[in-house]
Amino acid sequence: MPEFEGLSAVYLNASLQRHAADSHTRKLMEKSAGIMRSEGVDVELIHMLDHRIGFGMVTDAVADNGAEADEWPSIQAKIMAADILVIGSPIWLGVKSSLATLAIERMYASSGEKNAKGQYLYYGKTAGCIVTGNEDGVKAVSMELLYAFQHIGYVVPPQADCGWIGEAGPGPSYGDADPDTGRPFGFDNDFTNRNTTIMAWNLMHQAKILKDMGGFPDKGNVAADWQSVTNASQF
Amino acid sequence: MPEFEGLSAVYLNASLQRHAADSHTRKLMEKSAGIMRSEGVDVELIHMLDHRIGFGMVTDAVADNGAEADEWPSIQAKIMAADILVIGSPIWLGVKSSLATLAIERMYASSGEKNAKGQYLYYGKTAGCIVTGNEDGVKAVSMELLYAFQHIGYVVPPQADCGWIGEAGPGPSYGDADPDTGRPFGFDNDFTNRNTTIMAWNLMHQAKILKDMGGFPDKGNVAADWQSVTNASQF
Amino acid sequence: MPEFEGLSAVYLNASLQRHAADSHTRKLMEKSAGIMRSEGVDVELIHMLDHRIGFGMVTDAVADNGAEADEWPSIQAKIMAADILVIGSPIWLGVKSSLATLAIERMYASSGEKNAKGQYLYYGKTAGCIVTGNEDGVKAVSMELLYAFQHIGYVVPPQADCGWIGEAGPGPSYGDADPDTGRPFGFDNDFTNRNTTIMAWNLMHQAKILKDMGGFPDKGNVAADWQSVTNASQF
Amino acid sequence: MPEFEGLSAVYLNASLQRHAADSHTRKLMEKSAGIMRSEGVDVELIHMLDHRIGFGMVTDAVADNGAEADEWPSIQAKIMAADILVIGSPIWLGVKSSLATLAIERMYASSGEKNAKGQYLYYGKTAGCIVTGNEDGVKAVSMELLYAFQHIGYVVPPQADCGWIGEAGPGPSYGDADPDTGRPFGFDNDFTNRNTTIMAWNLMHQAKILKDMGGFPDKGNVAADWQSVTNASQF
Repeated sequence: MPEFEGLSAVYLNASLQRHAADSHTRKLMEKSAGIMRSEGVDVELIHMLDHRIGFGMVTDAVADNGAEADEWPSIQAKIMAADILVIGSPIWLGVKSSLATLAIERMYASSGEKNAKGQYLYYGKTAGCIVTGNEDGVKAVSMELLYAFQHIGYVVPPQADCGWIGEAGPGPSYGDADPDTGRPFGFDNDFTNRNTTIMAWNLMHQAKILKDMGGFPDKGNVAADWQSVTNASQF
Repeated sequence: MPEFEGLSAVYLNASLQRHAADSHTRKLMEKSAGIMRSEGVDVELIHMLDHRIGFGMVTDAVADNGAEADEWPSIQAKIMAADILVIGSPIWLGVKSSLATLAIERMYASSGEKNAKGQYLYYGKTAGCIVTGNEDGVKAVSMELLYAFQHIGYVVPPQADCGWIGEAGPGPSYGDADPDTGRPFGFDNDFTNRNTTIMAWNLMHQAKILKDMGGFPDKGNVAADWQSVTNASQF
Repeated sequence: MPEFEGLSAVYLNASLQRHAADSHTRKLMEKSAGIMRSEGVDVELIHMLDHRIGFGMVTDAVADNGAEADEWPSIQAKIMAADILVIGSPIWLGVKSSLATLAIERMYASSGEKNAKGQYLYYGKTAGCIVTGNEDGVKAVSMELLYAFQHIGYVVPPQADCGWIGEAGPGPSYGDADPDTGRPFGFDNDFTNRNTTIMAWNLMHQAKILKDMGGFPDKGNVAADWQSVTNASQF
Repeated sequence: MPEFEGLSAVYLNASLQRHAADSHTRKLMEKSAGIMRSEGVDVELIHMLDHRIGFGMVTDAVADNGAEADEWPSIQAKIMAADILVIGSPIWLGVKSSLATLAIERMYASSGEKNAKGQYLYYGKTAGCIVTGNEDGVKAVSMELLYAFQHIGYVVPPQADCGWIGEAGPGPSYGDADPDTGRPFGFDNDFTNRNTTIMAWNLMHQAKILKDMGGFPDKGNVAADWQSVTNASQF
């Protein structure tokens, strides 16, 4: 039996390309997902632009913020059912996409809810990110995404981000065919492949550790109860 | 026996105040350290400005970058001996201090070295940050610090940052005496106290989990060996 | 005649609140707009969520990225007709809103076009930002917005951002009524009022300077022509 | 007579390399400086690590923060005498160097002082930045530096940053000799050369505009006097 049988992952692509097949970021997400699938993880890729997602710090943007439609609740349900979350984002002007920001906002809107232990909702899960662009900004995008993940309860394992960019300036995007060789740009970049590999394994390890423990220990991190343990107000 | 007996933590203060006693950030670090000590963790606080630390992407700034003096190696040894690292930083113009940046640079300069499992040096440990200012920027500072931690091998547990700022504009710093009440500003801020408490507990839990497992699992994350496992170049 | 008669400004609100009247950020934008109007500037406030705006690095998201509707082109036309742009954003998890990111993406998608001098489209204009939240992140949001502005051609004058946040932790938002006094929170914050005032004046000065000069001088900054002046490839 | 005769610029290099000649960032700074010199600007390059600079939010780190030595005051005097400031920074872990952060801190420590018009000290000047690395982060570094500049009074003209990075992963730094061709990496990157050129020209234009006007207009931006003009507290 594969080592990570029984784990599940959602890969959420915040590309601005309407069609999943046109997304460069998805090409790198597929590599990461491929590793997980080979090791027994049940993986689902979601292309955000395949869905109508409303704006607002609300759980239901139709009911609570006047949106015409809102398919976020079904995405949110998948995120909650998964042990692992990976958000993919392109880079525009050095930062994450509007859709990646929208995903974080919608997740954050539920973050006050509690899991079965009384911890914030996302406790017991792990998350990472995948970033591509043709120019600059993998780390800047990752800083914002990984910060958000840990803030709402995810464990961020070592080396939880990976990505690809080209040399300074416009140029090919990840996976574009090199006109000279026909090979996709970035696919033979050892640095990107190595980091993508390490990240996938670390997310699987971390998810399994959390699952085997029955989630993250809850002493001291149940918001309603922080004064019942040794706490900051005592010092 | 306290639950976390046997764990150790280094609290590194990147305040720009020459003397530890003048540092507002230290006042919040002391609360966090107080929790850990009460739970059995062996804690050491280091005030960076008590030491002469050289610049450079080197492990020894005297030998390798012409510095007059460099006490970083002894700090680095303490960081390596500890299960938990907490960096404290003030906020200036919305970002972390030069000393916090210096600490990360010096740690990063060793990050290519390997631990006993062949993983990057900092694998098997956990880290968080504490931030204070009178105005704005706790999250911006934390994004950079937590990103650096996970990048070099630390596990970042849920809610690994805490901090305090006042309302927009100049004003009292954390722990300054309120002239009206005599009480220190920020000490009775429930939000800060709660987050400081949760962070201390989560770092202790995470450190214990890692220690009990003998470090982070090494399959797939040994840089020299990534091609021997299911990897990104296969997809 | 008012000093700044003849200038025009667009205030674009990237609030996540469906209705303009519910936006806290708008309350501060109104103060800034009030100063400009009093000094003769023709001001229009746009609430992004009053419009259906498509995603994508395209100028027309219906034609070029399969969106159902896209009112961005009419907003873009107003931005192009104005001398001054002010983007207002709330803060969520320490960063600018998805709508603010969307606005920048859509503006950036036109940035390769040229103005009458052959410069990038936004040359000859000036821009700033207004940020509110209940917690933390005015500077982090402003860094991203102001960076984007200068990158695509705007002049960023001194102190081009302003904002309001409360003390660390959840709490009232800008303009909420104080239950004790009935007065709106933040309205009597001298720091916020002063910075909001300085920013409005500096944007008006800068816009007038540019208008009086007939735009920004074009020697050396026409992308198609950089090799005809003293340039970096010569050194 | 060259068009920009009479203007002066300080180029401050925050490289972590002890010796100026070893700094890759300096190689790109030299190109920018070369353009300015050719156009009549009096340019001085300062290598921060040639100087002992103290820490602290103080104007004199020896007198006010217990430093052993502090040559910042002489650097500060040069910055104040110059019309243009350009800070160069390497990228480490995606962010600006500790020395770049130190430079901003020390400049900020004087920012409460006033110029002859009663404006904050740096009003009437213009600034930009130059960033190099072998991997990722030009925009992230520039966001922090340009934000700081405008915050303390500088005008940021269009396209005020430039830089070079290589493809994702470790690799040659800017100006390293290509073993195959002997040519320095990055020197023939048209994107970098073009942006470096545009930035130099825009800084010169902006400095001349400010000089010809006798600084930035002062109505509405003298902090002590903001309530004497139309202001935010009135709306």
